[in-house]
Amino acid sequence: MSRLFNFCAGPAVLPESVLIQAKEELLDWNSQGASLMEISHRSKVFMEIAQKAEQDLRDLLHVPDHYKVLFLQGGAYGQFSCVPLNILGKHSKIDVIETGTWSAKAAECAAHYAQVNILASTKNTQYRTLPDLTNVCASEDSGYIHYCSNETINGVEFQSIPALNTRNKPLVADMSSHILSRPIDVSKFGIIFAGAQKNIGPAGLVLAIVREDLLHQAHIHTPDAFNYLLQSQNNSMLNTPPTFAWYMVGLVFEWLKANGGVEGIEKINIQKSDLLYKTIDQSDLYSNPIDPMCRSRMNVPFILKDETLNARFLIEAKQNGLINLEGHRSVGGMRASIYNALPLQGVKVLTEFMTHFEKMA
Amino acid sequence: MSRLFNFCAGPAVLPESVLIQAKEELLDWNSQGASLMEISHRSKVFMEIAQKAEQDLRDLLHVPDHYKVLFLQGGAYGQFSCVPLNILGKHSKIDVIETGTWSAKAAECAAHYAQVNILASTKNTQYRTLPDLTNVCASEDSGYIHYCSNETINGVEFQSIPALNTRNKPLVADMSSHILSRPIDVSKFGIIFAGAQKNIGPAGLVLAIVREDLLHQAHIHTPDAFNYLLQSQNNSMLNTPPTFAWYMVGLVFEWLKANGGVEGIEKINIQKSDLLYKTIDQSDLYSNPIDPMCRSRMNVPFILKDETLNARFLIEAKQNGLINLEGHRSVGGMRASIYNALPLQGVKVLTEFMTHFEKMA
Repeated sequence: MSRLFNFCAGPAVLPESVLIQAKEELLDWNSQGASLMEISHRSKVFMEIAQKAEQDLRDLLHVPDHYKVLFLQGGAYGQFSCVPLNILGKHSKIDVIETGTWSAKAAECAAHYAQVNILASTKNTQYRTLPDLTNVCASEDSGYIHYCSNETINGVEFQSIPALNTRNKPLVADMSSHILSRPIDVSKFGIIFAGAQKNIGPAGLVLAIVREDLLHQAHIHTPDAFNYLLQSQNNSMLNTPPTFAWYMVGLVFEWLKANGGVEGIEKINIQKSDLLYKTIDQSDLYSNPIDPMCRSRMNVPFILKDETLNARFLIEAKQNGLINLEGHRSVGGMRASIYNALPLQGVKVLTEFMTHFEKMA
Repeated sequence: MSRLFNFCAGPAVLPESVLIQAKEELLDWNSQGASLMEISHRSKVFMEIAQKAEQDLRDLLHVPDHYKVLFLQGGAYGQFSCVPLNILGKHSKIDVIETGTWSAKAAECAAHYAQVNILASTKNTQYRTLPDLTNVCASEDSGYIHYCSNETINGVEFQSIPALNTRNKPLVADMSSHILSRPIDVSKFGIIFAGAQKNIGPAGLVLAIVREDLLHQAHIHTPDAFNYLLQSQNNSMLNTPPTFAWYMVGLVFEWLKANGGVEGIEKINIQKSDLLYKTIDQSDLYSNPIDPMCRSRMNVPFILKDETLNARFLIEAKQNGLINLEGHRSVGGMRASIYNALPLQGVKVLTEFMTHFEKMA
């Protein structure tokens, strides 16, 4: 079978050109006589790949010099614990803005290390909107403020940086499912982290962009392999990093640079999400429950008015070359994740299919 | 360039047939229309891959039913911290048998969590032998006894399970660089862990085989993503696992089963290491400093009597299709890592080259 349009929420679609290059090089990278997977992370050839990937990411996100970029393991889920372990210091509280499944999970993990204060929550709306933060203020003894800037499951995305009073506490953002999809001002954050498997590369690598002043307060219980200071002093190679994932991520960064960078891809992401939401909103069969002001450009859940059509929708979608549209088990219905690597053409085919399916239903 | 014989200590050589299969499937796994890297870890197709890999490992190592097999992230280095976080409980001490660089590192990491007691050390021999443990006894308040059963850098390998008095404390073994190279009796251990990038697969995955009674004493500071109980309850999918690495590991297990299993590969490993050590011992140019009773079958360091020949040795080795023979930066000289996936033919070519080089030198 040829490749289909893949709307999986993660691990997610990768640019085809990246996969083709990886395939060509899989047994013999750059005439080394070995796969990239089979060479030392401390070899000159791998170090060059690693450094270039970091520099490309810095270029793409305009990361200021006083931020370290770390390539770690354990996923964003691991960071839910490693952030407090690394930066809480003597603070007794952690502030969380709860806007969906993933910020709620982060709050659960953080509760192992300090009292968690939910600054604002949209749980009572089933996470269908975002909270008004204009009069919200961080806790006095807060170590940091955590939020998830795009909730993958619920399909809610902050369109700008939360406008709360941070009391100059570090703002920590889980950007797993929309990093590199739109410009961000890194200088406004203490830490940005993102699991690779949505918009960056294969699962097994998590990026952490950490402001330098936050490197020096790790709790003694922080595992060395997840200690920001130790990893930054060792260029993320205190221990063996996931070399193949790092290489793949580097290829994705190169692809993104060659395709207009974050600014360029944002334009396409707007086209893609506008087209899909418009198709949903104009339909009598499909609906998206999220407040239009905070709909995600990356993850678009939608339900069919007649649930008994779900199975047929999925079967016929696949016949039309569209796969992995099942909604998350906690939400049901459908979800189209339309990350950077999902081409505009994929959304065109999807929306045409949806319109056709509605007529036939 | 075609593929060369690759003696890298890790990330290390993989079976060529595994790489060929991965290459063929890279853009479209099993006619799914997507790469294995691009599908959900919760999809039926990935779950089957994951479960088969676990079952194959259980078959290969004859893992008893009361042990959980976990597929985690963060490497063996991460486990140096995650073991004490998970199983120390209220114990005040950790016992370590120090036989090389990696057990010493494990002791350093463990010291964040309890008093570390070095039960025995061969540091004063530059880690060139193994300690006599017949009269050694675990500490009374020890949480567990850690050792590294094969020291990758120093080339020292336990030929059998350490015969100390454990006081029924759990024995924890870092088997990263020789797991699956020889039979082991899993039932003698509390925990066995192993980073994948030596004998199992690509970097980015670490196996932990954990006796069930050790699942229930995690410290509150244990990150959820590295909590043995939570991961075992979720089949190592509490969070997104490194799916591609897991798939690759599964292919390596299949390859090993098709090639006689652990018992079969051990015979070849003995042939390989015997041939290489014999070549070294019969030579006037090469020498291996390790006590013959505890030489590693996997990692064979050797030095050239005349160090000025090192550069020429490496250049001519490469001309003969032999790569990554440089010794570890802390030891110098050469090192041939001859893991399961390095074919006997590779050692034959290496030893013929070494003999020829000595004659010409």
